[in-house]
Amino acid sequence: MKGKVRLTIADSVAHVTLSHPGKLNAMSRVMWQELREVFEAIQQDAALRCVLLAGEEGNFCAGGDISEYAAFRFEESSLRQFHDELVWGGLQAVLDCDVPIVVQIEGACMGAGLEIASCCDLRLAGASAKFGAPIAKLGFPMAPRELALVMCAAGELTAREMLLSAVVLDAQAVAQRGFLHRVVPDQDVADEAVMMASRVKRLAPQAARLNKQAFRALAHTQRALAATGSITNPYAYAASAEHREGVTAFVDKRSPQF
Amino acid sequence: MKGKVRLTIADSVAHVTLSHPGKLNAMSRVMWQELREVFEAIQQDAALRCVLLAGEEGNFCAGGDISEYAAFRFEESSLRQFHDELVWGGLQAVLDCDVPIVVQIEGACMGAGLEIASCCDLRLAGASAKFGAPIAKLGFPMAPRELALVMCAAGELTAREMLLSAVVLDAQAVAQRGFLHRVVPDQDVADEAVMMASRVKRLAPQAARLNKQAFRALAHTQRALAATGSITNPYAYAASAEHREGVTAFVDKRSPQF
Amino acid sequence: MKGKVRLTIADSVAHVTLSHPGKLNAMSRVMWQELREVFEAIQQDAALRCVLLAGEEGNFCAGGDISEYAAFRFEESSLRQFHDELVWGGLQAVLDCDVPIVVQIEGACMGAGLEIASCCDLRLAGASAKFGAPIAKLGFPMAPRELALVMCAAGELTAREMLLSAVVLDAQAVAQRGFLHRVVPDQDVADEAVMMASRVKRLAPQAARLNKQAFRALAHTQRALAATGSITNPYAYAASAEHREGVTAFVDKRSPQF
Repeated sequence: MKGKVRLTIADSVAHVTLSHPGKLNAMSRVMWQELREVFEAIQQDAALRCVLLAGEEGNFCAGGDISEYAAFRFEESSLRQFHDELVWGGLQAVLDCDVPIVVQIEGACMGAGLEIASCCDLRLAGASAKFGAPIAKLGFPMAPRELALVMCAAGELTAREMLLSAVVLDAQAVAQRGFLHRVVPDQDVADEAVMMASRVKRLAPQAARLNKQAFRALAHTQRALAATGSITNPYAYAASAEHREGVTAFVDKRSPQF
Repeated sequence: MKGKVRLTIADSVAHVTLSHPGKLNAMSRVMWQELREVFEAIQQDAALRCVLLAGEEGNFCAGGDISEYAAFRFEESSLRQFHDELVWGGLQAVLDCDVPIVVQIEGACMGAGLEIASCCDLRLAGASAKFGAPIAKLGFPMAPRELALVMCAAGELTAREMLLSAVVLDAQAVAQRGFLHRVVPDQDVADEAVMMASRVKRLAPQAARLNKQAFRALAHTQRALAATGSITNPYAYAASAEHREGVTAFVDKRSPQF
Repeated sequence: MKGKVRLTIADSVAHVTLSHPGKLNAMSRVMWQELREVFEAIQQDAALRCVLLAGEEGNFCAGGDISEYAAFRFEESSLRQFHDELVWGGLQAVLDCDVPIVVQIEGACMGAGLEIASCCDLRLAGASAKFGAPIAKLGFPMAPRELALVMCAAGELTAREMLLSAVVLDAQAVAQRGFLHRVVPDQDVADEAVMMASRVKRLAPQAARLNKQAFRALAHTQRALAATGSITNPYAYAASAEHREGVTAFVDKRSPQF
């Protein structure tokens, strides 16, 4: 496939690459759609044994493409559609993938990047990678289902710290908190990811798919509970001054006034 | 407010202080009621952006006020009322607070103190702080909802160790187990807590409240399940000899004989 | 009791020993039945205050007894009976035990051993112990309820790594991930386990039983959800070529071809 989420298949391994040059592979709306299509294609291919997901040119994914936000974030129905259909459609396709997913994390792993990484099975990072979701600076919360996803993968302590105090953590810190399987020197992360994919590839493929289905049955429950929880309207903040100020200030390269 | 749980508000930050001189801020019955009132007042104040919770004079909270126990713990209905209404009323008010809560932990963080800290979002501790719930020495279990709260915040491993072997752990150990965000030298913990509150205060306040509601939707589920679990009567132990011996021995300053 | 799962009682502590000489205490079908009987007996004995579970001769348990697998694993109904009745019957009896269980882990703690250890309350290991569930090399997945058990005890990150990439981790690694309470030099683990059992024994016994019931109420929920999750038939893989190849290759001492 062409586009900004690229799929190549070699020797029963699917290589998925996020590519948004000049934006540290930040996810645009079209990229969420492409992410969904790529993982739906992977799920249809019974011959695949592993997915290796990475970002281009030394970064995994810096978050969402903020330049698009003013076009849809300040109206409740378009904000809801963005999160519930476009973003969750992409994340759900990754979560629904029965093939083990190795994610190779370099550089920025922020916001949308953190959410995508949270859908993967085996997480490797280079020592200088950075992790966070400092959207409280942009004037908006994380959508509840996405929060539940990050909370399950990164732990409640880390999710609260990232969301409520907007900290950015380094690879060593999130590894100690249980988000990463391994941290390796930056120059080794690509080779290590290939070695891990190669290791996964040699194992029993049907067993892997059945194990992934069992993990999913457990995780789905938690997220479903979050989605149907006590929040009656998670997107009512769309038109608020705070939301508008945060996004606008970022685009204008000035500090937001909350 | 006067009383033993004090609230002062300055520059959109609510400072809540536990103050029970000579008892390391152990929670008496009146303090649970005051804790509830203070946090209900905070929740009503739309202008607040952060809560900073601490204990007076170098300790957070050493547990419950054991000198009161003989008056109500050995009868099932008064024990039930204590846990389900008084204690849970206080904890629920902290949990229901939509404003991010930074807790500054020094010295003793035991039993009730551990439970209160488990309701907070960002947990900082001084290096010499101590954590535990050695109530098995006092002849009684933790109430199931409180156990679920500690288990979610401190992890199942740590909760089992604290309850079943009555260990007291140091700050470094519970940080490694994922209960604390940061451990700093004792003399720096107050300044660090103020800096973290100040950082939280500058972020988007509506986003923080929405994120807290989402975290709560997830956490509520787990605790609700625990509360409605397989335990038909968690307070039937009230009049047991073991319970009476544990509490009485403590008050008499002798070793309990179980 | 005689047999391969031995129970001796001394001074209100039940000592349970896995003994399968020459197989690193691997669990045969008869041992699962014995494990159930031993723990049902323990649960009936109101005078017990602690269980100390260990394996004989420097190993805890290397997994299942693979030499038996060809006799029952390749037919769906006998595979289902094995997992749902025999294995889960044993694990359930350990989980249902109201007495605190200290597990002393030396050497191999793999597969079935990891599952049994996951049912215990206080986990001590010698520094050279090894942990994993590399059954993807044997061509089969972990049964969903057993997976949920390991996932809750060892964490999702570690469970995915063990199942999907078949890694074997050392004691220090799984301690850092939150599976173990303590790692001690190999020569000290037996003494430390006795000391921990002795510490537990002196605490209030009714309180311990009530705390264990509360922990169980929480944990049951997660596992029940997993068991009734989206997997309609977790044992349909019984007769698959992959399953047969994995088990057969192991018995034949050759590499499986998946």
